[in-house]
Amino acid sequence: MDLRRDCDRITAGAIARVLPGEAVCRALAGRDFGPGRLILVAAGKAAWSMADAACGVLGSAVDGGIVITKYGHSRGAIGSLTIREAGHPIPDESGFSATREALDLTVDLRPEDTVLFLLSGGGSALFEAPLIDPEELRNITARLLACGADITEINTVRKRLSAVKGGRFAAHCAPAQVFTVVLSDVIGDPLDVIASGPAYPDSSTCAHARAIVEKYGLSLSPAARRHLDKETPKTLSNVTTLVTGSVRELCGAAAAVCRELGYEPVVLTDCLACEAREAGRFLAAIARSHQDTDKSLAFLAGGETVVHVTGQGLGGRNQEIALAAAEGIAGLRGTAVFSLGSDGTDGPTDAAGGYADGGTAAKLAERGVSIHETLQNNDAYHALRAVDGLLMTGPTGTNVNDVSVVLIRRD
Amino acid sequence: MDLRRDCDRITAGAIARVLPGEAVCRALAGRDFGPGRLILVAAGKAAWSMADAACGVLGSAVDGGIVITKYGHSRGAIGSLTIREAGHPIPDESGFSATREALDLTVDLRPEDTVLFLLSGGGSALFEAPLIDPEELRNITARLLACGADITEINTVRKRLSAVKGGRFAAHCAPAQVFTVVLSDVIGDPLDVIASGPAYPDSSTCAHARAIVEKYGLSLSPAARRHLDKETPKTLSNVTTLVTGSVRELCGAAAAVCRELGYEPVVLTDCLACEAREAGRFLAAIARSHQDTDKSLAFLAGGETVVHVTGQGLGGRNQEIALAAAEGIAGLRGTAVFSLGSDGTDGPTDAAGGYADGGTAAKLAERGVSIHETLQNNDAYHALRAVDGLLMTGPTGTNVNDVSVVLIRRD
Repeated sequence: MDLRRDCDRITAGAIARVLPGEAVCRALAGRDFGPGRLILVAAGKAAWSMADAACGVLGSAVDGGIVITKYGHSRGAIGSLTIREAGHPIPDESGFSATREALDLTVDLRPEDTVLFLLSGGGSALFEAPLIDPEELRNITARLLACGADITEINTVRKRLSAVKGGRFAAHCAPAQVFTVVLSDVIGDPLDVIASGPAYPDSSTCAHARAIVEKYGLSLSPAARRHLDKETPKTLSNVTTLVTGSVRELCGAAAAVCRELGYEPVVLTDCLACEAREAGRFLAAIARSHQDTDKSLAFLAGGETVVHVTGQGLGGRNQEIALAAAEGIAGLRGTAVFSLGSDGTDGPTDAAGGYADGGTAAKLAERGVSIHETLQNNDAYHALRAVDGLLMTGPTGTNVNDVSVVLIRRD
Repeated sequence: MDLRRDCDRITAGAIARVLPGEAVCRALAGRDFGPGRLILVAAGKAAWSMADAACGVLGSAVDGGIVITKYGHSRGAIGSLTIREAGHPIPDESGFSATREALDLTVDLRPEDTVLFLLSGGGSALFEAPLIDPEELRNITARLLACGADITEINTVRKRLSAVKGGRFAAHCAPAQVFTVVLSDVIGDPLDVIASGPAYPDSSTCAHARAIVEKYGLSLSPAARRHLDKETPKTLSNVTTLVTGSVRELCGAAAAVCRELGYEPVVLTDCLACEAREAGRFLAAIARSHQDTDKSLAFLAGGETVVHVTGQGLGGRNQEIALAAAEGIAGLRGTAVFSLGSDGTDGPTDAAGGYADGGTAAKLAERGVSIHETLQNNDAYHALRAVDGLLMTGPTGTNVNDVSVVLIRRD
């Protein structure tokens, strides 16, 4: 019975399945886009991997396209695709011109043609074609932020000042079909929010946008004011969207590995968003209440918890989950709680997350480490490192939030 | 589909099942204590109800006994039993003399005799026979508290200065059998902790006790020092213990009512102990991730959460769970989260707990109530009262912690 070995297998197996390439392969396997042209447009931090995988699956069916990713994120040529790098998180002229190239590639298409649109985190900055002077757009955003506008308000205004956001890219591609594959890094997968929804109907209206401008007393150029009154698409009949590599798949993949290892998996949630250490305590309570089980059990919770920093220590939300759980599962046989960030980077550390089992609290006590004080100081990293409780994966190349797992092993 | 009606039925049904009388009836139904004498000793805040129920079940099989409960907690004569009231939480001479009466009733018993020992919350103060001057015992406790000794340390010393704690009451009853029914109000039901375990082997030792006295530099009378060196029972072959009316039964009872109402119940835990509002968020995340269910589901979590008070408002841990959950389940159809304290009193309020469903957040927003600010101010009571979100049961006469329930109704 080696819980730590199981933890490492579940970690590796779950991440492998949500890597951008893997996720795109699953999404496209066996699909036939018909006899028309197939243009690929990939935007986001994972654009290169997604495009590479798509070309691997579809081969010569791809008639061309463009990849727009962050500086340093492309890894060479992919067939005949144009590869562009651009600024993120601050959009820049390279991104704007690359996006215009994408628009040029997708103009004058016919109904039998398809745009394969591969979207990942960072797409909002990397895939942008401002309808006004980019300098004014930046100013508007900065002023809205300064006034305390929330992200929904900012997006409502910005979508109207963009040629691609708020469903406009898909409208531009019509009458061609747009097949969108989204690698989601936003909990709950709100498709109008991810990259500001270039291929998704916009639920906000011009009236909303005008009300926000009025509320915050923004002065706009005549051009900006004119664009504010042009409505975004409310329906899009040419779009199919497939979300892949989301935290839901991360949970599903982790659950699948658990099952292979002999655990009966129960996915509790894929949208956890509470305070990390309290999530750890909740998970530990679940572990403690299932000790009389005959069969091995795994409880999984995906999402992205938060940490309210009160100390000067080093750590991350997943490490805090594991450390807080260590107290609640102290002394339990065959029981572990671990948690990891799918990007391999938990907080400002080189660890992907943390691991604790029934013996962790005693090991910490032996070293004179108080779990309570360590959490107060947000120093989970050093505490877990001392008891081999860090999960180290290195950067994984994907980011689909976190998953926490309770293991109860009964052999 | 009336979620609130389901909530009220689950609340009423669960509490009914963990009332002291009900719990004792279930524990004793069909039991035969043989031809010997049967002496009843009941101690604790629920002692009267427990004894009354036991006599109802066992009738003339009970050959006598004593009930020791808190002032104002007895409700008349029960057959031939002696009824005594005493001080709680501070023990007093009435309790000491009543306990000595219990010891007199249970001396010189034979192997075929049985002591039916009914124990409930408050038993530690109400069932006590000090081996030293009570004034010195009080002083020792006060000095240990002042030195920062924890409750385990205090109990380790006190058990040795008592004629009944730490298993000594059961040892006193030998060779008679002791059948103990415990109404548990301590999470996890640690039988050596509940009422300091009069009928449960003591795991602490004289060496522990001496080390604690040394650690805090206590000066003891010669009598106290002598008693510190007398070991408590480490095994007790004449004791059978049955825990009833615990939070585990509360969860089980709530789950049973859920099933009757058409929900498939899942008990997540019965030892929840994290921050109340974060538990509410966790439960809401579970609710949100199970929206695609075809059948009605209920998730239950029992335990006792905590609230770190930061504001001046009115509320309780169960109300905070419901209010925090309201945000996470906003807009979800057929979905509710509610939480209640089984004693009918949540925090310093007249409510037993709180209720929220998919429409609660909108109702609060209409009234201009911010969930976030309300939680900051610990004012869940007034927010929930404004939207019919308080659970009102009145005092229930039992206290077996709390239960929180997620309902997802699919008709």
